[in-house]
Amino acid sequence: MKPYAQLTPEERKEEHARLQTEFSALKAQGRQLNMARGKPGKQQLDLVSDIFGLMQDPKDYVSDGIDVRNYGEMNGLPAARRLFADILGCKPEQVFVGGNSSLQLMYDAIAKAYTHGLLHSPRPWCKEETVKWLCPAPGYDRHFRVTETFGFQLVTIPMTDGGPDMDAVEAAVKDPAVKGIWCVPKYSNPEGVIYSQETIRRLAALSPAAPDFLIMWDNAYCVHEFEGDYVPFPDILSVCAEAGRPDMVFEFASTSKITLPGAGVACFACSEANMAHMEKVLAPQVISFDKVNQQRHVLYLKDKARTLELMKKHAAIMGPKFRSVADTLDKEIAPLDIASWRRPKGGYFVSFNAMPGTARRTLALCKEAGVTMTSAGATFPYGKDPQDSNIRIAPSLPPVEELEQAMRVFCVCVKLAALEKLGV
Amino acid sequence: MKPYAQLTPEERKEEHARLQTEFSALKAQGRQLNMARGKPGKQQLDLVSDIFGLMQDPKDYVSDGIDVRNYGEMNGLPAARRLFADILGCKPEQVFVGGNSSLQLMYDAIAKAYTHGLLHSPRPWCKEETVKWLCPAPGYDRHFRVTETFGFQLVTIPMTDGGPDMDAVEAAVKDPAVKGIWCVPKYSNPEGVIYSQETIRRLAALSPAAPDFLIMWDNAYCVHEFEGDYVPFPDILSVCAEAGRPDMVFEFASTSKITLPGAGVACFACSEANMAHMEKVLAPQVISFDKVNQQRHVLYLKDKARTLELMKKHAAIMGPKFRSVADTLDKEIAPLDIASWRRPKGGYFVSFNAMPGTARRTLALCKEAGVTMTSAGATFPYGKDPQDSNIRIAPSLPPVEELEQAMRVFCVCVKLAALEKLGV
Repeated sequence: MKPYAQLTPEERKEEHARLQTEFSALKAQGRQLNMARGKPGKQQLDLVSDIFGLMQDPKDYVSDGIDVRNYGEMNGLPAARRLFADILGCKPEQVFVGGNSSLQLMYDAIAKAYTHGLLHSPRPWCKEETVKWLCPAPGYDRHFRVTETFGFQLVTIPMTDGGPDMDAVEAAVKDPAVKGIWCVPKYSNPEGVIYSQETIRRLAALSPAAPDFLIMWDNAYCVHEFEGDYVPFPDILSVCAEAGRPDMVFEFASTSKITLPGAGVACFACSEANMAHMEKVLAPQVISFDKVNQQRHVLYLKDKARTLELMKKHAAIMGPKFRSVADTLDKEIAPLDIASWRRPKGGYFVSFNAMPGTARRTLALCKEAGVTMTSAGATFPYGKDPQDSNIRIAPSLPPVEELEQAMRVFCVCVKLAALEKLGV
Repeated sequence: MKPYAQLTPEERKEEHARLQTEFSALKAQGRQLNMARGKPGKQQLDLVSDIFGLMQDPKDYVSDGIDVRNYGEMNGLPAARRLFADILGCKPEQVFVGGNSSLQLMYDAIAKAYTHGLLHSPRPWCKEETVKWLCPAPGYDRHFRVTETFGFQLVTIPMTDGGPDMDAVEAAVKDPAVKGIWCVPKYSNPEGVIYSQETIRRLAALSPAAPDFLIMWDNAYCVHEFEGDYVPFPDILSVCAEAGRPDMVFEFASTSKITLPGAGVACFACSEANMAHMEKVLAPQVISFDKVNQQRHVLYLKDKARTLELMKKHAAIMGPKFRSVADTLDKEIAPLDIASWRRPKGGYFVSFNAMPGTARRTLALCKEAGVTMTSAGATFPYGKDPQDSNIRIAPSLPPVEELEQAMRVFCVCVKLAALEKLGV
């Protein structure tokens, strides 16, 4: 098949008719397939469910002399803080280990800035006239929504192959109303981009007008390669400290996609000064998080080296799914010259750029044929993609056979929407 | 021994000298004993640690067709909602099951009122000039601290034998700045009072000037008798609904003192209209809480009847500790007529009223002799007891032998402080 742009109107009509027949046949199969969210599949859950076999021996109830079953240790078991420090490359005293959700910890950091202020805030953000927030896009819809729910103005920053467009970021932070930026530095959601050294250096070297400017460093996929070897990443806390702004960043991570998405352990990491501030503002809210589950994870993951071994097993499940998606796109869509995408080596998504103006139509067609995807626009602030082009594909949940069916439907829909746009 | 007030100055001096010798001897033993917080003791933790043996069978990973290990079900597993509804006497759809901490859920309800507003709020509370909050006292220091951290003005409401002084409450809610009240309706913290039917009726019948007035109904000790039979309690959601104000109350409960304090499951319950509002404001914050631990609790506790059976076993551990405290006070302090206390039948505390003006001194002496107690004043707003009288005794953590030693120290300190006050 030639690129669609090179087809004659007659050829386009023929192709459209052929695809409509195929679409009707797929639709008639009445399948319900889901590629909406980065949910691990059952095989991954089963892989780690031996974690429930732990905590059988009373000696496991005690960690560093602390009975993990009782109240106490607000900022987490020391052993759990050491585990995350090992993974993230920072110091244990810079780590706060919480409950099952890094999203909750991120929300809470922003909420505390809003209600009480951060360490260097002149006042709580709820007392500010306007708060603006930088959103590299395409990005993670749940990030954008956290800052939207507090009424911040979301400012779109274009993404490049090396991370957020730093010229745009450096210009934006001159505005004292700009209070922070969302970052997913490794295998960014959804593009799978790894921030370049240069991007990271420039982020740490920012001189924002706001004294309490905050880099929200969501290292969600820090050890999540499914292709090739583990890619080391710098400790952002050290990088910011070396640049003279140790308090400008909060890092987040979790085991949601290492052990269990519903029942893992999450943490944040920050400078010691920020930690002291957070302990003060968190004390009225928290006695302690679930230290039994923290202990279960300490016993299960042990350290970074064993964690990376486990991630190889996840890769053996995830790799084939991502290869299937990319291979299908290469075969079905690439020759038509109507879309672009990356072939990520880690993370949970494939970012697909359909022909501008066709993303919503593509996903409406998918839905008609029983395939649920992340809604169009979700990867942009306020759910509005100015190009109506970006689509986030989440291949992790369905088994490979279902994924192949879903991708078949998806490709037909991408083509139909493109032909409609070109005119048939 | 006669009442201290009837002693001659000479007799007081003799008694004081005798007590000082005893105090020095106790101090010389160099013990470190802790009655500061309502922490369950090790025997109670061991009692329920067979809960870790659950979740071994893959069929337990699925509840009502939901894989409990994956993301989803923000407001909790349906089976967990049914369990708490059974215990609280409300409907499952009125229950939101969260993580390990009811304090966090309480904080969050207040935080959402502050940042976003409640269902009937004209505006978020952070936009109000002044927010006032009713604090029945003696009460729970962590409650007071939550409302203090958001800058609310704490208004002390006297406690009576049947709960908060309702005349004072009814008068206070005429002020539109008064936005809510803390309540621990069963075995109140620290007094162990059960709210009377009349108190509950009058609370539900309140006509506050604030349209978004909120009753924070912390049913922390709903099934926590350690003496005698289970005492039924009314479903506050129904009571408020029948009084025509279904949205005025949020109820809270947890298994922190049923299973594990660090690793239990907490919930809130509210009207369906409030639930819809909370789901909307919580959606940006939460994907889901730890459903594995929810499932563990469903399998372990099963229903209200089995939960009450388990509470009998806790009572067998707690009962002797509370009897030891009350018996010691009856024997050592009662004849002196220098203090008063209740003999609670449930909950986690004994509320002790020392001779006015001696609580702080008593606890300073205790500390000197190695006994840590909840700090004086903690049971009042801002940590300031106007009488300097109330002391919260928390007998749950130490084994009975240690508790007896601690109570011996405590009684000597109470007497010494009283004699100092009377003049020696």
